[in-house]
Amino acid sequence: MAARIIDGKAIAAEVRADVAERVRARIEAGESRPHLTAILVGEDPASHTYVRNKRIACDEVGMSSDTRLLPAETSQAELLDIIRELNERPEVSGILVQTPLPPHMDEPAVMTALNPDKDVDGLHPMSLGRLVQGEPVMVPCTPAGVQEMLLRSGYDPAGKRVVIVGRSMLVGKPLALLLGNKARGGNATVTLAHTGTVDLPSVTREAEILVVAAGRPNVVTANMVRPGAVVIDVGTNRIDAPERKSGSRLVGDVDFEGVSQVAAAISPVPGGVGPMTIAMLLANTLKAAGG
Amino acid sequence: MAARIIDGKAIAAEVRADVAERVRARIEAGESRPHLTAILVGEDPASHTYVRNKRIACDEVGMSSDTRLLPAETSQAELLDIIRELNERPEVSGILVQTPLPPHMDEPAVMTALNPDKDVDGLHPMSLGRLVQGEPVMVPCTPAGVQEMLLRSGYDPAGKRVVIVGRSMLVGKPLALLLGNKARGGNATVTLAHTGTVDLPSVTREAEILVVAAGRPNVVTANMVRPGAVVIDVGTNRIDAPERKSGSRLVGDVDFEGVSQVAAAISPVPGGVGPMTIAMLLANTLKAAGG
Repeated sequence: MAARIIDGKAIAAEVRADVAERVRARIEAGESRPHLTAILVGEDPASHTYVRNKRIACDEVGMSSDTRLLPAETSQAELLDIIRELNERPEVSGILVQTPLPPHMDEPAVMTALNPDKDVDGLHPMSLGRLVQGEPVMVPCTPAGVQEMLLRSGYDPAGKRVVIVGRSMLVGKPLALLLGNKARGGNATVTLAHTGTVDLPSVTREAEILVVAAGRPNVVTANMVRPGAVVIDVGTNRIDAPERKSGSRLVGDVDFEGVSQVAAAISPVPGGVGPMTIAMLLANTLKAAGG
Repeated sequence: MAARIIDGKAIAAEVRADVAERVRARIEAGESRPHLTAILVGEDPASHTYVRNKRIACDEVGMSSDTRLLPAETSQAELLDIIRELNERPEVSGILVQTPLPPHMDEPAVMTALNPDKDVDGLHPMSLGRLVQGEPVMVPCTPAGVQEMLLRSGYDPAGKRVVIVGRSMLVGKPLALLLGNKARGGNATVTLAHTGTVDLPSVTREAEILVVAAGRPNVVTANMVRPGAVVIDVGTNRIDAPERKSGSRLVGDVDFEGVSQVAAAISPVPGGVGPMTIAMLLANTLKAAGG
């Protein structure tokens, strides 16, 4: 039996529509328009595309945005000065530092310079610490997107066995906290598996909800999934596809063909978690604006 | 067969001896003596005892210490001024704010005012966030004590299934991160169980290492433990004991009598995790001094 497909694109559109509605209400009430400032250092084409897409998404929900384009040779001290200036500006609701930064910069030090209240990526240590405290302010966008996708597709994690594969700072660890915390969308019993896990299939088969964020294709195959589980695939891996004009295609970390024969529901790649991440960035920017 | 008893008192003495040796070496090398300043607001007798014991422990490893005794009616603004002053003083290596604070104070706001580099309790959101990032600076004392106790008694968590019962900010959540991180004493596959867990016994029976930090007696009984597991009891509950002169005694969260018939090893209460917590406070104070 084929699994239900969890349509991240459609769910992300719902989130964006909610954000747009709340932005409209704010502005009608005479409050300020939420504003995102993106900082982009250097000429990496993929980073330019990401930032452009984020700004288009801001436009679509009625938020304003701008980009500070800095040359690759910008010194870290200059970047920190710009961040400090943006931290102080009341009209800047959220600040996004697009990664990767050039190799001469200390990425954690730059992130830590952000005002945590404007940290719409949710990756400042203060943001992560508040998540441990169970009082999240800014939740990292991808974990927040996974949670929202589960809730909006009717799979509340509360009381469920959740297994997360992958312990990155961007996804696995904050998601484990988020789904385990005593709050709406949480209260699951979460196991965090990783490259040090012995007998991974026996662990993943315990999952009623299985989230895979390992960063490699085919980490999870059908024999590793409990029949009837809900599977969320966070991976985005570009692999060779000679049959395509582009020569490549995107796949997740899960063997979609096989697993969709066993799971009750599965999120595809592309069109799953990816669109949710940008939608949650918009939600965080609105929150940073006080809305 | 009775379980091996993990003697927290003896292991804590080893940790303290290591710290004392490193303090001695620092001072011989002409470096400063680590100094702990405790802040104690109000007259709670238990808090006064805790602070006294921590200062005695400092003495014993050759660290200096002092206590700022403040009346219960101290305003939060006054307390924050004192914290800011101590944050700046180079001779103060570590600052400890003894909890609970009087009810008119916002405890998280007070903790967040500490300089994270002097946060020897490891409970500042920055300290917790750095633990999520996998780059811990100050690890909260009780989780650090549990990890050290496991390592020093020969039960390295690496590759093991660990179940933690209890998701407090003080113990369960930071311990889950610590034991799951890719680092010495980590690399375990950790499941965090709590009051929202369905069928707790089936979850706890998966554990090769079971850590119980639920804050209630008898949360874990023999039928909930996999034969041969290592059990660490973080609880300290005072219960009535009419047969004693004091009328009460301390017990953990684990049914010690029953579980010690099933487990391979178990930490007792008292004499288990408790002494480790103070030992790790000393280790953090030494670290805060740069040693």
